[in-house]
Amino acid sequence: MEQYSSKLLQNAVDAFAQLPGIGRKTALRLVLHLLKQPEEDVELFVGSLTKLRNEVIYCQKCHNISDKSLCHICCSPSRDETIVCVVENIRDVIAVENTGRFNGLYHVLGGIISPVDGIGPNDLNIASLITRIKEDKVGEVILALPTNMEGDTTNYYIYKKINAPDLKVTTIARGIAIGDELEYADEITLGRSIMNRTLYETLMAQK
Amino acid sequence: MEQYSSKLLQNAVDAFAQLPGIGRKTALRLVLHLLKQPEEDVELFVGSLTKLRNEVIYCQKCHNISDKSLCHICCSPSRDETIVCVVENIRDVIAVENTGRFNGLYHVLGGIISPVDGIGPNDLNIASLITRIKEDKVGEVILALPTNMEGDTTNYYIYKKINAPDLKVTTIARGIAIGDELEYADEITLGRSIMNRTLYETLMAQK
Repeated sequence: MEQYSSKLLQNAVDAFAQLPGIGRKTALRLVLHLLKQPEEDVELFVGSLTKLRNEVIYCQKCHNISDKSLCHICCSPSRDETIVCVVENIRDVIAVENTGRFNGLYHVLGGIISPVDGIGPNDLNIASLITRIKEDKVGEVILALPTNMEGDTTNYYIYKKINAPDLKVTTIARGIAIGDELEYADEITLGRSIMNRTLYETLMAQK
Repeated sequence: MEQYSSKLLQNAVDAFAQLPGIGRKTALRLVLHLLKQPEEDVELFVGSLTKLRNEVIYCQKCHNISDKSLCHICCSPSRDETIVCVVENIRDVIAVENTGRFNGLYHVLGGIISPVDGIGPNDLNIASLITRIKEDKVGEVILALPTNMEGDTTNYYIYKKINAPDLKVTTIARGIAIGDELEYADEITLGRSIMNRTLYETLMAQK
């Protein structure tokens, strides 16, 4: 552990270094940057964090971060309420929104089932998803979880819990990323991309 | 610019994204991490920054960050007061301290002369260095500034300002970094490393 010339500096660097992906050198750089800024700017920085932490609201329906009890997506009259896209976290909502290809609603699980990390179904917003599917007129649930073992487990758990033969349950397509070369793709992905191949005419129509 | 589902979230991400080297995606990741932490932890984080910004003191002598009017290095009776190492910023003090090879005092300039960035000699702690050299019993000044054009300019400016024939003025050695191969070194560095070669016996004695 490095020795700093000031206890105040030490504390601030320690605080930054606890953030994910921030090492002690970067923490020091960030703290010294803030130290050079006008006092008002540091107050704004600090204030925005305090305000967010103390006043944050999660949407009652989809658990997205919100300023009101229902988020702007759940409130919007132009969104298709019959399709619900299930995602792991809020960053995934932003990622899907940025594609501009989805006009339904979301459901944020707040994680995925991971026995290694001690995260079980009861730690996630799964019960409220099941209730929501039953009470609202949901026609399709898109499972947009990570394409790894934890994601697959969570997909399967939710699929079993839904247990509604009329409901369409889909998952996002697994395949070769656009711009990628086939020879570098792993076999499982390439295999899936062949099994779940898309009609060329469909692809052309999606330009 | 991405749209977030909450104005509070937006503000916090904006605040983080203003820090050097932090993009919007990283900013969002950090903010969402803080959001998951207990409220007390966020208060500690925020408190450490506010406290540092409001209560920070710079050492009257060397301009290092300090908790008192004189920093722990300038106060220390075991340091050699006759040698002053001139550095660009506080991070360089930490870097030199970490080598464990220097037992003198420091002088933090707070930057280097850079006409492009509009930084002139008067923006830096040069006047106080000259005063200090004259008033204290300084026998050697080590210029440990970056080995680039701005550093060279600043070295030359300080050297001219000191204008004391009795005083020993040195710079840190330029040469091949330990572990580097000669064929990848640039010609100027390699040239310098030959011109300013070190007696092998001296090197052996420094093990």
